[in-house]
Amino acid sequence: MTVKALIFDVFGTCVDWRSSVAREVEKVFPRVDAIEFAMAWRAEYDPAMAKIRSGNRPYTDLDVLHFENLQRVCEDFNVSKDDAALWDLNKAWEKLDPWDDVLPGLNALHPNYILAPCSNGSIALMSNLKRYAKLPWDCILGAELANDYKPSAKVYKAAVDALRLMPHEVMMVAAHNTDLDGARKMGLKTAFVPRVAEYGPNQSKDLAADSDWTVIAEDFVELAKSLNSSFV
Amino acid sequence: MTVKALIFDVFGTCVDWRSSVAREVEKVFPRVDAIEFAMAWRAEYDPAMAKIRSGNRPYTDLDVLHFENLQRVCEDFNVSKDDAALWDLNKAWEKLDPWDDVLPGLNALHPNYILAPCSNGSIALMSNLKRYAKLPWDCILGAELANDYKPSAKVYKAAVDALRLMPHEVMMVAAHNTDLDGARKMGLKTAFVPRVAEYGPNQSKDLAADSDWTVIAEDFVELAKSLNSSFV
Repeated sequence: MTVKALIFDVFGTCVDWRSSVAREVEKVFPRVDAIEFAMAWRAEYDPAMAKIRSGNRPYTDLDVLHFENLQRVCEDFNVSKDDAALWDLNKAWEKLDPWDDVLPGLNALHPNYILAPCSNGSIALMSNLKRYAKLPWDCILGAELANDYKPSAKVYKAAVDALRLMPHEVMMVAAHNTDLDGARKMGLKTAFVPRVAEYGPNQSKDLAADSDWTVIAEDFVELAKSLNSSFV
Repeated sequence: MTVKALIFDVFGTCVDWRSSVAREVEKVFPRVDAIEFAMAWRAEYDPAMAKIRSGNRPYTDLDVLHFENLQRVCEDFNVSKDDAALWDLNKAWEKLDPWDDVLPGLNALHPNYILAPCSNGSIALMSNLKRYAKLPWDCILGAELANDYKPSAKVYKAAVDALRLMPHEVMMVAAHNTDLDGARKMGLKTAFVPRVAEYGPNQSKDLAADSDWTVIAEDFVELAKSLNSSFV
């Protein structure tokens, strides 16, 4: 193993967006089912990015996509607020709590490996989330460096290039098999960490690794044990 | 004051490149005057970037410019090493010691302000330097986001845009008057911190503020006192 940097999916893999976003929704719309609202908001995420991946819309950062999606979900839930209040609520995506194993795992990995998010979130969103959740990132990589969204190949390539490393020196860590598939196609190493409650008790996908990823670990603490033991 | 983020010049302002680079030069070329070598290496910095600023050369990251400059300085000093050894020495720019006031000042500012470098160094260089010097950056901004070099306006604009802030919400901190001039032209707030020994005992420029910058502070600890007292 010659891995020098670990790059991470963030929403779902590092942080629990579902309950964190629901917590913020509840403050603004106390009468809606906040968990259902958070799930509906997240359900708009991939379709919004798909238009950009396919070239049908110029790159637009995730803060704007989240805001547009929020307006749509408010209509569906029959609630409304002025734009300023909705932009405040939009910042729910900067106040996401890490899963319990994330900070111990990342802090154990940090002496040996460069750590960075490779998320579809913007640099601003990821910087503010880093401050909120105290994530020990060395830099912010991801969609904004490539002007495209994962799992488009450009995003992984831009991350590797920004690190001035070779693809095999970089490992993508994610709870989503499609994300790892995109990274592996670009020559990166891969690590799968399951998050079986990301979508709540009825989650139906990404319950387990569906391929022979470089590393499969139960959580970030196990990942750190595994990678630190092979660190040269 | 509505400043939300502070962005920093790094070489000279945050770190003492002169003695740090000399220390690494001495390990590789024990017979040369390491301080003179470091100064000669740094003297090639601005001319190399000038070609890119003027459009006479496509954007090339600072790691490559530093390497080319190192080859030239080796010739001038009549010393040589193979490319692998020179690339190792090139990493001297990732092992620069912060001035004594930098970490106390940045750590005092960090609870209230987003902190990021806005340097001509690449994302990789700045990430590795962050790890070495333990700088509490929230993200890495600078030349690579703009594919241009300070004091070109594009670099300050790219930093403000990546933070998703307005120019007047961002303050550029530098020991170099020309850097602050570039930032102010783009609408940023400015802070001058003198580094009168950056170029050694015979330094002739940037000994003091040459304009009415938003803040003028003796060092980063004074800067933190001043900005934290006006934090709203």
